[in-house]
Amino acid sequence: MASAPPPHRTFSGQFSSLREQSLVPVGMATILPEAARQVRRLEAEMLACFDRFGYDEIILPTFEYLDVLAPGLEPALVENSYKIVDRTTGRILLLRPDVTAQIARTVAMGMVDVRFPLRLSYRATVFRYEPEHAGRDREIFQIGAELIGADDPSADGEIIMLLIECLRQVGLRSFKISLGHVGFFKELLVRAGLSLEGQKRAEQAAARKDVPRLGEILSHERVTKRSAHRILDALELCGQAEVLSQGRALAKGERQLIQALDRLEAVYQLLCATGFQETVLLDLGEFRGFDYYDGIVFDVFSNGVGAELGGGGRYDHLIGRFGRNLPSTGFALSVDRLFRGLNLSERTKPDRGEVLVVAPLEAATRSALVAQQLRHAGIRTVQRAVDPSGKDLMGVAGKASLDATIDTIVVVGADRSKPEHVVVLHQDGRRQGVSSADRTHPQKKTMTITNLIASLRAEREGAV
Amino acid sequence: MASAPPPHRTFSGQFSSLREQSLVPVGMATILPEAARQVRRLEAEMLACFDRFGYDEIILPTFEYLDVLAPGLEPALVENSYKIVDRTTGRILLLRPDVTAQIARTVAMGMVDVRFPLRLSYRATVFRYEPEHAGRDREIFQIGAELIGADDPSADGEIIMLLIECLRQVGLRSFKISLGHVGFFKELLVRAGLSLEGQKRAEQAAARKDVPRLGEILSHERVTKRSAHRILDALELCGQAEVLSQGRALAKGERQLIQALDRLEAVYQLLCATGFQETVLLDLGEFRGFDYYDGIVFDVFSNGVGAELGGGGRYDHLIGRFGRNLPSTGFALSVDRLFRGLNLSERTKPDRGEVLVVAPLEAATRSALVAQQLRHAGIRTVQRAVDPSGKDLMGVAGKASLDATIDTIVVVGADRSKPEHVVVLHQDGRRQGVSSADRTHPQKKTMTITNLIASLRAEREGAV
Repeated sequence: MASAPPPHRTFSGQFSSLREQSLVPVGMATILPEAARQVRRLEAEMLACFDRFGYDEIILPTFEYLDVLAPGLEPALVENSYKIVDRTTGRILLLRPDVTAQIARTVAMGMVDVRFPLRLSYRATVFRYEPEHAGRDREIFQIGAELIGADDPSADGEIIMLLIECLRQVGLRSFKISLGHVGFFKELLVRAGLSLEGQKRAEQAAARKDVPRLGEILSHERVTKRSAHRILDALELCGQAEVLSQGRALAKGERQLIQALDRLEAVYQLLCATGFQETVLLDLGEFRGFDYYDGIVFDVFSNGVGAELGGGGRYDHLIGRFGRNLPSTGFALSVDRLFRGLNLSERTKPDRGEVLVVAPLEAATRSALVAQQLRHAGIRTVQRAVDPSGKDLMGVAGKASLDATIDTIVVVGADRSKPEHVVVLHQDGRRQGVSSADRTHPQKKTMTITNLIASLRAEREGAV
Repeated sequence: MASAPPPHRTFSGQFSSLREQSLVPVGMATILPEAARQVRRLEAEMLACFDRFGYDEIILPTFEYLDVLAPGLEPALVENSYKIVDRTTGRILLLRPDVTAQIARTVAMGMVDVRFPLRLSYRATVFRYEPEHAGRDREIFQIGAELIGADDPSADGEIIMLLIECLRQVGLRSFKISLGHVGFFKELLVRAGLSLEGQKRAEQAAARKDVPRLGEILSHERVTKRSAHRILDALELCGQAEVLSQGRALAKGERQLIQALDRLEAVYQLLCATGFQETVLLDLGEFRGFDYYDGIVFDVFSNGVGAELGGGGRYDHLIGRFGRNLPSTGFALSVDRLFRGLNLSERTKPDRGEVLVVAPLEAATRSALVAQQLRHAGIRTVQRAVDPSGKDLMGVAGKASLDATIDTIVVVGADRSKPEHVVVLHQDGRRQGVSSADRTHPQKKTMTITNLIASLRAEREGAV
């Protein structure tokens, strides 16, 4: 499904050597600090956006009992799940392969005394065996939202607006939402007289936009030429508002087809009226590939990422499989693919400067007190103890000044005549991105900690 | 090890009915929105504290190959790990049972071109089979930090100061750090002539402070009475500075015992000099229960939590087991136990007020635009569409005003004569915690969105 991205553009590409791949399970990479900072920033920005829409985070267990969760999962997904026999109970545990099914289970069976519509968000890892590995695709970071217990087009619209606002919030520039209604295509298949098995196979081919395969299935199912044409034509209907009228022509006044188009039109109009026309493409062949979707569905695509960043849709009968009927809609995004879409390596800014406190081992207490004062003032501070045997304090400090993340070096214990003073090496050019060749020699000053904190604060406020 | 807490004080206690326990694997609970918000706030506060100390987050894979990670794990921990045969390679995958070992593996095998000392932090879930389940103790949320490649007492001091500052940061009031040096007790065992197997068993008994069991082991190992006394005495040495002199009396000038005490004294003095004397207790019988610790070790205890909140220590030879010698120290905290220690249920503040936009279904577009404007102004806003058939808009709005999280209700489409205006029901008392009986009837005003946003902003700024 995914075409492998150039490795420098994904956080999973950080450990790409063959050696590392044999040490860490394929498809499950380590995210090193620089990328981790970006992932966390992304998460925080999206969660803040969810919050403005009234969505609250829920944290779910990593494992579920297979027998309990199974009603919400397709057999193929169960097959691709990681399973463990629980030593305590002998029951089969499943590492969650999908969050929506898990939330459906939780809402139906566990959440009493909540008001509906219920708005939930999550960031979670899902686990799936995948035949091909592009990036971190066996251990998938997802962020998503679910709107539970709301049935109308404005609920469909809300969840798609939330998705779009989130993506804009994190700085994704060029992306498209492909919007459809599974009811339209499914109804065409039913009307063409396909067997249940044939319908399922046809839907899978449609989800992959595999027209030749769909044609084979239709002919194998002995569908009439007219019906087959209608189905293949529907799959190709993709674009702006004209798709709706083309769909109506195909529908020929058949009630369920018209109902699907009416709903799609209502949602589309809502999105156009709220300024998202440019972002949305109608697609009557849109399929999410999860069998629980039964209404409006959508996918997000972005330039330069071979697979969809995520998607979602309406699942009015999923929660009912766990015993409580609640019409619902939601979406999930793959953080890894979003990361690729954002091309974050270009967005990276240099680290916020940090202060290094250098002191001889025997001045450990004084050094710790200086660092403590700086940190309490909100300044990121690291310490380094220098073994006094033959080493020159100022030499160590000068060497440390070559470190790109350090903009100020504080030497403790350099001047025994003024124990309350520290020597400060300060590099003005560092945080403005001046290259090391152009940088002036660090300025050396002797001052008290109070004065140092005041000057660092003033400088940082000025730089913001 | 853990005594079960009262259920209302832990976020894992939210689903405590018997019915739920049979649906969700024991020891792996769901964290509902209110508790999730507190967990995330806790994480964010701690990560901000880590950042001020120069520690950067790393995100590690959930699985490791058993053969790769095994050198860092004790056999008992491997036994209690969740294992899966990898379908792709046939190798055994392990759900990480410990983060420190995983970081050691990563640093030794995967991280090239990094400067040492390296400061890493993490928030991760570890998975362990546990015979008894108190709270969420098979799927354990941990937050921790590692200082890698630094060998001196000031490094030991730094990691403990970081731990204390983090706990203070999140508002933990009464806690103690129990500080020891495993080298002292281990050396006593060696000098008493215990077998390797006997040493291991004696250490385990010491970690549990199980004096009778330790006595049995010593007599089974035929340790002389004098040596046994020395060992049992050491286990009891716990308190302030006097522990060091009592330890020196037991050491009788033996070099390795004295070295351990010297190191412990240096770290203790550093902590006392930087204002942490009240928080630290020396304990010569302190053992973390992980065999990779080989120097200074510590545990955190808090009133009202039966088990330690976390702990850590020096592991100078762990990374070496993966092929790269790097003296290191670090700690981990259990988020669940920290949550209990904080008694967060008492700390909970009412939700930030939210705005509800109510509109008839046919005004979905207008309603979405109003909500959009409010959200863009940073105001948390939810929408509700009212089916017009026989329902009274203002009645729905009035009913919604009983909802505790909503402080302002905006009705769209109530007054057809002024389409640019909305009707606002506003409850001043709500956010100040006035009970519903004392609250005045909501004020009803008609205004433009621009004016509404201005007044909400002014009110919120005033409330901060």
